[in-house]
Amino acid sequence: MTERTEGAASMAELCETYREAVEELLEKLLPPPEQDGPAARVTEAMRYSLLAGGKRLRPMLVLAFCALCGREWQQGLYYACAVEMVHTYSLIHDDLPCMDDDDLRRGRAACHKVYGEAMALLAGDGLLTLAFETISRCPNVVHDFLAVRTLARCAGYRGMVGGQCVDLTADGGEVTASLLEQMDRGKTSALIEAACLMGCYAGATPTHTRTGKKRLTAAARYGQALGLAFQIRDDVLDALGDPEKLGKNTGMDSAHQKRNYVTLLGADAAQELVEKYTQEALDALGAFPRNTEFLRELTLSLVRRES
Amino acid sequence: MTERTEGAASMAELCETYREAVEELLEKLLPPPEQDGPAARVTEAMRYSLLAGGKRLRPMLVLAFCALCGREWQQGLYYACAVEMVHTYSLIHDDLPCMDDDDLRRGRAACHKVYGEAMALLAGDGLLTLAFETISRCPNVVHDFLAVRTLARCAGYRGMVGGQCVDLTADGGEVTASLLEQMDRGKTSALIEAACLMGCYAGATPTHTRTGKKRLTAAARYGQALGLAFQIRDDVLDALGDPEKLGKNTGMDSAHQKRNYVTLLGADAAQELVEKYTQEALDALGAFPRNTEFLRELTLSLVRRES
Repeated sequence: MTERTEGAASMAELCETYREAVEELLEKLLPPPEQDGPAARVTEAMRYSLLAGGKRLRPMLVLAFCALCGREWQQGLYYACAVEMVHTYSLIHDDLPCMDDDDLRRGRAACHKVYGEAMALLAGDGLLTLAFETISRCPNVVHDFLAVRTLARCAGYRGMVGGQCVDLTADGGEVTASLLEQMDRGKTSALIEAACLMGCYAGATPTHTRTGKKRLTAAARYGQALGLAFQIRDDVLDALGDPEKLGKNTGMDSAHQKRNYVTLLGADAAQELVEKYTQEALDALGAFPRNTEFLRELTLSLVRRES
Repeated sequence: MTERTEGAASMAELCETYREAVEELLEKLLPPPEQDGPAARVTEAMRYSLLAGGKRLRPMLVLAFCALCGREWQQGLYYACAVEMVHTYSLIHDDLPCMDDDDLRRGRAACHKVYGEAMALLAGDGLLTLAFETISRCPNVVHDFLAVRTLARCAGYRGMVGGQCVDLTADGGEVTASLLEQMDRGKTSALIEAACLMGCYAGATPTHTRTGKKRLTAAARYGQALGLAFQIRDDVLDALGDPEKLGKNTGMDSAHQKRNYVTLLGADAAQELVEKYTQEALDALGAFPRNTEFLRELTLSLVRRES
């Protein structure tokens, strides 16, 4: 795999365009509470976590796959925001004391450190719910029930929630590379897969309502592989990264005696896996006839990211 | 309001028919884990709470409104199960130590007492997610995006989650009857309203895709009023009821110094409110031309229920 620099500026520009559009719609979909009543607090907590920035990787994938499938990327914005809401809810619940018990997230205090555990629990519940409402409000879609089904399948007990369960039950027992893979495919890859598939659904044109099965399979394969590469890179950064750049505490996994790819295989072997899965993701993009340059560059930039 | 006894047997029979059909589909929608792997535990926790019986009031309302709108009640089964999943998730999260901290639910140990807090949190998340997947898998529906939107709106921060937030922020401050109403409309009425509306959507026939606006308004009004009557009856039972019949601890509200209608107004005045809202619910049923006898009897049976 070689590093690509040509066109990097335009990738960064497109990322910025996508990010701004997502931020703008998120703000609209969850406006500040109209009055400071007793129900306002949970909306504030939801906004605190949802509008805290972050890479917005998943929304970008929705938009990129939407464009790849033949419609304007703007058509994917509602689905992009829905996926980000699910991602944010999972972070809030994951940071709770009964889960990973983490105080710092996206460069600021975790939701429960500011609003308390009960309100953070509700804020997560509210965001997960709002994600599905957002899909149902998306204008001009051909088949939103497929988007609902895909997001729910990937976020649920056979996907992200299942991966969290593997993580919990793995604590204390023997941890193998295959168990880690099962965990990461659930915890991380599933939602990234959902983002790619939802982009394909948003990008399906009315005259051509079924995106080819081959392309959906490729999008799912890309998402799974990218998710693993992304998560293992996270493990590497947790061990070796700079807390300031990352906006979160590092060394958390070893502090909590959690096994990950780095503690199991060492940082070098873990980074090799990152490269392997990145290549697998790039290969999957071959199924798309249109310009995949943006996605290729985005993928490569993630392998060597420092935050 | 007079007590009705005629036809009570047939109401009980229809309840049983509905309940059996719901139990059967719930079991199918969340089958036991295929193998005893590390991801199985959360499925077990979800099943533990979802298949623990309960009145299944919300599913019955879905089915009854479905029949009222012109299709066979069976057509409402997927939506009925979806609403019950949302209800069960809310009970699991509500029982957690950081929320109401309750040990007993539906006659047995609360989910977190059996599976631990983290797994109970995930089980709730998984059920909320599965609810939307269930809607998206419902066969033969005319407009499932309306069902998704309604369930999400009623369950989210402007509905059930908002009501929970009012409950949390009200602790410690002055509690008025109007604040209690706002709380109960969110915590309880919103999901019951969703059940009634989803029944109408499931019951809309393909040739007549829009259930009249007047009927939808009436269904929502019925659900709101029934929800208040139901919740205030709950408060009365919490103060005066029999823990064995109820399958949960009583006196919890006063033990936690939570204000409710009974602690604020006394049991007699609270029961009067139950009757008032029940009458409002019965009045709303007037908008439906078909046989509303089942719903009328069900409504009345709830006012005087002991469990």
